[in-house]
Amino acid sequence: MSASEFEIIHDHFERHGGANRHDVILGIGDDGAIVQPPADQQLVVAIDTLVEGVHFPIQTRAEDIGWKSLAVNLSDLAAMGAEPAWFTLALTLPESSNSWLKGFSAGLFELADQYGIQLVGGDTTRGPLAISIQVAGYVPAGKALRRTGAQAGDLIGVCGNIGDAMLGLSVLMDEPPLSEISTDRLVASLNRPRPRVREGLRLRDLAHSAIDVSDGLLSDLGHLLATARLGAELDYAALPFSAAGRQLLQEVPQHLPQLLDGGDDYALCFCLPPDRLATLQARFADEPDVLGIIGRVTETPGVHCQDAQGKRWVLQASGYEHFRQEDRWAY
Amino acid sequence: MSASEFEIIHDHFERHGGANRHDVILGIGDDGAIVQPPADQQLVVAIDTLVEGVHFPIQTRAEDIGWKSLAVNLSDLAAMGAEPAWFTLALTLPESSNSWLKGFSAGLFELADQYGIQLVGGDTTRGPLAISIQVAGYVPAGKALRRTGAQAGDLIGVCGNIGDAMLGLSVLMDEPPLSEISTDRLVASLNRPRPRVREGLRLRDLAHSAIDVSDGLLSDLGHLLATARLGAELDYAALPFSAAGRQLLQEVPQHLPQLLDGGDDYALCFCLPPDRLATLQARFADEPDVLGIIGRVTETPGVHCQDAQGKRWVLQASGYEHFRQEDRWAY
Repeated sequence: MSASEFEIIHDHFERHGGANRHDVILGIGDDGAIVQPPADQQLVVAIDTLVEGVHFPIQTRAEDIGWKSLAVNLSDLAAMGAEPAWFTLALTLPESSNSWLKGFSAGLFELADQYGIQLVGGDTTRGPLAISIQVAGYVPAGKALRRTGAQAGDLIGVCGNIGDAMLGLSVLMDEPPLSEISTDRLVASLNRPRPRVREGLRLRDLAHSAIDVSDGLLSDLGHLLATARLGAELDYAALPFSAAGRQLLQEVPQHLPQLLDGGDDYALCFCLPPDRLATLQARFADEPDVLGIIGRVTETPGVHCQDAQGKRWVLQASGYEHFRQEDRWAY
Repeated sequence: MSASEFEIIHDHFERHGGANRHDVILGIGDDGAIVQPPADQQLVVAIDTLVEGVHFPIQTRAEDIGWKSLAVNLSDLAAMGAEPAWFTLALTLPESSNSWLKGFSAGLFELADQYGIQLVGGDTTRGPLAISIQVAGYVPAGKALRRTGAQAGDLIGVCGNIGDAMLGLSVLMDEPPLSEISTDRLVASLNRPRPRVREGLRLRDLAHSAIDVSDGLLSDLGHLLATARLGAELDYAALPFSAAGRQLLQEVPQHLPQLLDGGDDYALCFCLPPDRLATLQARFADEPDVLGIIGRVTETPGVHCQDAQGKRWVLQASGYEHFRQEDRWAY
């Protein structure tokens, strides 16, 4: 027997709801939720949709879909240096499968609980599977990180690895580009991205600008450079690849642009004045490996890099864009 | 040639964006928007999704879809007594048709401008047509209207007509239940619902509880009565039907439950202590016809009504629920 909309909300979302926050005056169950943001804080909001077959392969587990739907939104808050607080969920699904909903909500709240954030409202409708989440976080007035602000001479930093999610997708598509790889870890990079919330908070007051790497490093770094018509010189040895990524480049060096351009990693990319590096490193003393300095902002436009063989690359973002390319994931 | 995601956002949403509000520190174009809610206000948030073929017929004009996507959300703010402020948009569409997007954004911003609210962020993805909007409004701390709070003896009030949207749908489905009706006005009731924002603000400090009538009066009134296990005695002569609705009942009196149960009207229903009626009427002095008192809350559960022929009805909500019924609108 299929559950009603009210039963779905109660059984899978209202009963848990995530953290029970003091700034949430009224949660799920009325026409709207009531929230009391702290008086000295600004609100940062972001909304992202995942559509089946477009943003995740059709066979993706419900737990992973739940996790990722929230993770991609938390990643946007991370890029703004905001502290996650609460979220709303618009869930469209073709049928009310109890086991699917159980898995989805388990993955969703597993991540929500890690950040102490609360689901305050939602809408459940019938239709092709799609999940829209709007997440809200707090940041002291004027302290949010933005995409604009990079200056020539800034260091370019990255928190997190680049390219693993793309490699994970290749594994799922039975096109592994590597001879020997840890496939589970790569698929997890795709399905269970870790939003870099703590890292974003550590960048506050130091970074000139920041963005989360959702469309690929070249594409998203391009956003940081574009408004001031700046360029970048990347340090090949410092590029934030995992062991799998480095192995791929050893086997097939010409994969460099694709690896730098693979989406869905949800690392943070930022621009930092060099004289603030020591302060930032001190903030990352507990996990220095997460913080990578991968290059420098240049006045010359274009992104350049010299590889281990001495070859000089001019790197161009192809960047995944809806409506311009085929739906890569619709298989 | 199809536009890219960035071009769509810029051409159809960023350039307009609605009002340019002073509480919006940073709008569209970064990883998130930054908003500074007034210090003495609480935030009311609601999210609603419209799916093609489920929430609106497939042939619905893009202008009407844009309007209605925002209207149903503003109606939730109205029911909470909140003043609309800003919204985010998650738009999933099968292809980037410039004319469709032009129409959609025109309808969306026509309504947004009426309330001085600003689009602060969004996500545009490819997939089956669906629109999720999260809207946020402000209310002085502790002043929001809720669904709970009705007491026996309260008057039951409605702002707006009931049943016209259902009649409009019948017209579109070529099943007009009336011999002679103003079809354009009924279809407009379905496609261009007017959120009762001003009315909701007028209910603050007076009504015990309120809800917007999206699923049908019987269903939504049921929510106001359910938590306290109360009932209602409705006054047949005062029921908030339009001339078309009254004509239908004259021709076919047994349509009363369906008319009371038709969804999508977005009227407000509320419970009011009788000694506050005069104060409320004074607030509606400029448009007294919008305010209808249609009955009284009773200790006896169940919703009852005696019609013009003296027949006594026990009215039960069938209420449209996703996942329980067939998709009525998928045609």
